[in-house]
Amino acid sequence: MILTVTLNTALDVTHRVPRLLPHASHRVTGVAERPGGKGLNVARVLGALGHPVTATGFAGGPSGALVRELLAAAPGVTDALLPCADRTRRTLAVVDETTGDTTQFNEPGPQITAAEWAAFQGRYAELLTGARAVALCGSLPPGVPVGAYAVLVRAARAAGVPVLLDTGGEALRRGVAARPEIIKPNAAELAELTGSRDPLPATRDARRRGARAVVTSLGPAGLLAATPEGTWQAVPPRRLAGNPTGAGDSAVAGLLSALTEGLDWPAALTRATALSAATVHAPVAGEFDPRTYDEVRGSVKVTQL
Amino acid sequence: MILTVTLNTALDVTHRVPRLLPHASHRVTGVAERPGGKGLNVARVLGALGHPVTATGFAGGPSGALVRELLAAAPGVTDALLPCADRTRRTLAVVDETTGDTTQFNEPGPQITAAEWAAFQGRYAELLTGARAVALCGSLPPGVPVGAYAVLVRAARAAGVPVLLDTGGEALRRGVAARPEIIKPNAAELAELTGSRDPLPATRDARRRGARAVVTSLGPAGLLAATPEGTWQAVPPRRLAGNPTGAGDSAVAGLLSALTEGLDWPAALTRATALSAATVHAPVAGEFDPRTYDEVRGSVKVTQL
Repeated sequence: MILTVTLNTALDVTHRVPRLLPHASHRVTGVAERPGGKGLNVARVLGALGHPVTATGFAGGPSGALVRELLAAAPGVTDALLPCADRTRRTLAVVDETTGDTTQFNEPGPQITAAEWAAFQGRYAELLTGARAVALCGSLPPGVPVGAYAVLVRAARAAGVPVLLDTGGEALRRGVAARPEIIKPNAAELAELTGSRDPLPATRDARRRGARAVVTSLGPAGLLAATPEGTWQAVPPRRLAGNPTGAGDSAVAGLLSALTEGLDWPAALTRATALSAATVHAPVAGEFDPRTYDEVRGSVKVTQL
Repeated sequence: MILTVTLNTALDVTHRVPRLLPHASHRVTGVAERPGGKGLNVARVLGALGHPVTATGFAGGPSGALVRELLAAAPGVTDALLPCADRTRRTLAVVDETTGDTTQFNEPGPQITAAEWAAFQGRYAELLTGARAVALCGSLPPGVPVGAYAVLVRAARAAGVPVLLDTGGEALRRGVAARPEIIKPNAAELAELTGSRDPLPATRDARRRGARAVVTSLGPAGLLAATPEGTWQAVPPRRLAGNPTGAGDSAVAGLLSALTEGLDWPAALTRATALSAATVHAPVAGEFDPRTYDEVRGSVKVTQL
């Protein structure tokens, strides 16, 4: 199985309103809830692709219980989340049905105790023994040390399990130094890591900081990968309209599934790019549209640089 | 004990943000949750005043479980909520810390089945046998017939329990015809019921529609009461700055507690007005500030009209 780690899971709530007016009272016309946090999004996409996947991290309080209840309905995903005493954060997306724009409210994550973090590391070590690859995804909740991903990368390397790290800021800076197999920054995370806004030199620079391969997501412009086997850019056949939420997580799922199947980089990047595009184009934020995926993956353009 | 009925309970969530910007992403700097819905607010104020109170209505799903958990911490309140299969609505208040303004998002209530509504009526009849007064408060969730309050008013009258009805629209129109002891509309609900925006004639008109007494809440201008014993206006000593959320519910608690203590109308209106003012002035929306209550209740001005 593939293991995904989401230390800062979330209950993602979407409210639809006819029109957002600041300081007014709104009747919510539609409510949707789904398990959130990058690693859970990756797990759901892997499960939907038919890859056995185990999701770990923390879940606590009523929002955490609901995350687990919703996760139980995701095909192919095994729930190995650990309880925490504080409550899982909620994210609220308010969609203005007149303009289509979204206004986002993100609660702070739960306070994780030292004992909970220690318990997590024990569970993670157990889960690694059955894992073919691991994805470490998203922000760190309060209480988890900023060097946490470096610790988890080293544990995976010691167990011989390839690890993909998808985070930003100081957690990425520390994590990359522990030599993960792949990092997948977006343009902003890459610029923060390297100090450069020029994607190609910055992607190459990020590799020198410790990652075996760096795959940078460039939004509608696709993916840029610097690897020991070469450097490639993968571009979707056309710009798809929609919601970019979760597109990066689908790219991670594409890369990880390809990695465990032994595909080469052009094939892996094709899959990741197509899944990303199919997520932007899906009617529900964070899901991928299987028809778009099937249609797009035959025509992703991969160029060696 | 006093019985309060909240068919459409809510989990009231407050998010504080530094500044609300439509279509932006916000880091929530403060999260607060409390049991909501008018009847639960009334119950909490009665409990805080030292009156034994039982709260009934519906609660379902994870949000309903959280409402019950939070209600268990309210002193003096006995939880007699019935489960429903659908989930209790959430209300979200986003407070802009720069301007102090609030933007409100209200989810639709749970769908109540015919069996759940029938079960509620049985439980309500049992609870009435121990009640000295009953408050029927707030909106009706989907599935509950629009004539529900008329049914509940008649059952209370048959059991010899005085009933206060605090709702609006068609539920109020039907309910008042069943002859409750008191209705407590605000200015907008009164205008909708009577077609008149002139508070004094409208309050008297509302009495002729069936209520023994009508107490209209006029916001900062206090309360206007038309009763068989006379007509009064009660005005707070000064305009208090703050959040009017829950001020009407505190007035209901004041009226009901006075009713069960056998106080006369001027004393009841004084208490209701002072509690209302102390709720506006409280630091937390929907709570009342005991110091303001003690300070204000000696100087409410009650005038017979």
